[in-house]
Amino acid sequence: MADPGPNQVGHEPDLLAGAVVGLLGGTGAQGRGLARRFALSGIEVVLGSRSAQRAATAAAELTAEGVGAVRAASNEQAARAATIAVVAVPWDGHAALLSELRSDLAGTLVVDCVNPVGFDQHGAYALDVPEGSAAEQAAALLPDSTVVAAFHHVSAVVLLDPMVDTVDLDVLVLGDDRRATDTVVELASRVPGMRGVYGGRLRNARQVEALTANLISINRRYRAHAGLRVTDV
Amino acid sequence: MADPGPNQVGHEPDLLAGAVVGLLGGTGAQGRGLARRFALSGIEVVLGSRSAQRAATAAAELTAEGVGAVRAASNEQAARAATIAVVAVPWDGHAALLSELRSDLAGTLVVDCVNPVGFDQHGAYALDVPEGSAAEQAAALLPDSTVVAAFHHVSAVVLLDPMVDTVDLDVLVLGDDRRATDTVVELASRVPGMRGVYGGRLRNARQVEALTANLISINRRYRAHAGLRVTDV
Repeated sequence: MADPGPNQVGHEPDLLAGAVVGLLGGTGAQGRGLARRFALSGIEVVLGSRSAQRAATAAAELTAEGVGAVRAASNEQAARAATIAVVAVPWDGHAALLSELRSDLAGTLVVDCVNPVGFDQHGAYALDVPEGSAAEQAAALLPDSTVVAAFHHVSAVVLLDPMVDTVDLDVLVLGDDRRATDTVVELASRVPGMRGVYGGRLRNARQVEALTANLISINRRYRAHAGLRVTDV
Repeated sequence: MADPGPNQVGHEPDLLAGAVVGLLGGTGAQGRGLARRFALSGIEVVLGSRSAQRAATAAAELTAEGVGAVRAASNEQAARAATIAVVAVPWDGHAALLSELRSDLAGTLVVDCVNPVGFDQHGAYALDVPEGSAAEQAAALLPDSTVVAAFHHVSAVVLLDPMVDTVDLDVLVLGDDRRATDTVVELASRVPGMRGVYGGRLRNARQVEALTANLISINRRYRAHAGLRVTDV
């Protein structure tokens, strides 16, 4: 709509016309879960993995579940096919993978949802990232892509649960390019129950990624799969 | 209740029996707003300030509004009178004030709600804190107190608005002492609409403080007074 007015989140479905979402690291729980929800929302999904065998298995499982067409691919193929590439690898493999895919991701909207979080006997804690955040690391490694940070606080357990029809949380979407963040806001809002909310510039991604450590603490204390909602928006 | 069960936030009202909340920096918008809501909830409040005149004015205004009894005091008097001292000073004055009040705050539960946030032409951003967070700085400066981090994301505008009866957000409460975090969870939950939720150990306070920069970005984009709710808890 042209003018969503104050306190309303505007939607521009056209931003997703012809969109192909490529999941990099798509065979992990987060990657499979996002692939599942995007496919269920009618979006074309390519599920990439380092292992062709694992990608084929994960894509076949999702297709058998009836969520829609999910194609298996290598990470390189997924990156090249994608108009929106979602980075869902473990933090350990983040920099190496993105360095390899720099040319494959040139000109592509890259959505980083990686959480640099460590664990010890006291639970989860945020890891220091030299670039400030995983998303800023991605932006540094991918100078020819547009990087947005989003989908950090989405429980993979919830995404993969066939009993959960609506995903009850907001997705904070961060980035410095308005069209790119609007597109990812729209992508998040395609999933029933989920809502994309602009959450600031990329320099403020660190605390959003790190907050995952707090949500893990909350989950442990309250035996929950906690998410966040933004009030008054 | 003895066993709140999973996914329930337990309440122990006895934790606040005889509580006196002292606001340090109580004449700022955040301090006055919290003083107002605590007093409205029937909690005894001492409003401290560096300036006796400003404390007297702020306390008189709140009392005239009929929110309950709010006493004016110096920061030192408020610190000594408090069973729960709430630190609501600007980040600039944080270390200096706490250093001065170390002995006054010995044995006291100290609730730090200070957000180290800076502003430039692109909006708000998180400041680096050598100790990791304002709360960890407080813990380092107050070795004889128990420090909890909470009330970071509460809009002073909302707290001070007489038209707002219920404050629609959750307060993340962080700390390493279970009785102390339980007490502050209960304190937050005394304010109608507000709910205290345990949010992790003090080492995870940094991102909660820093997230205020994101909420400021959200407020600007959506013309809102954004808060957070934790889902599934």
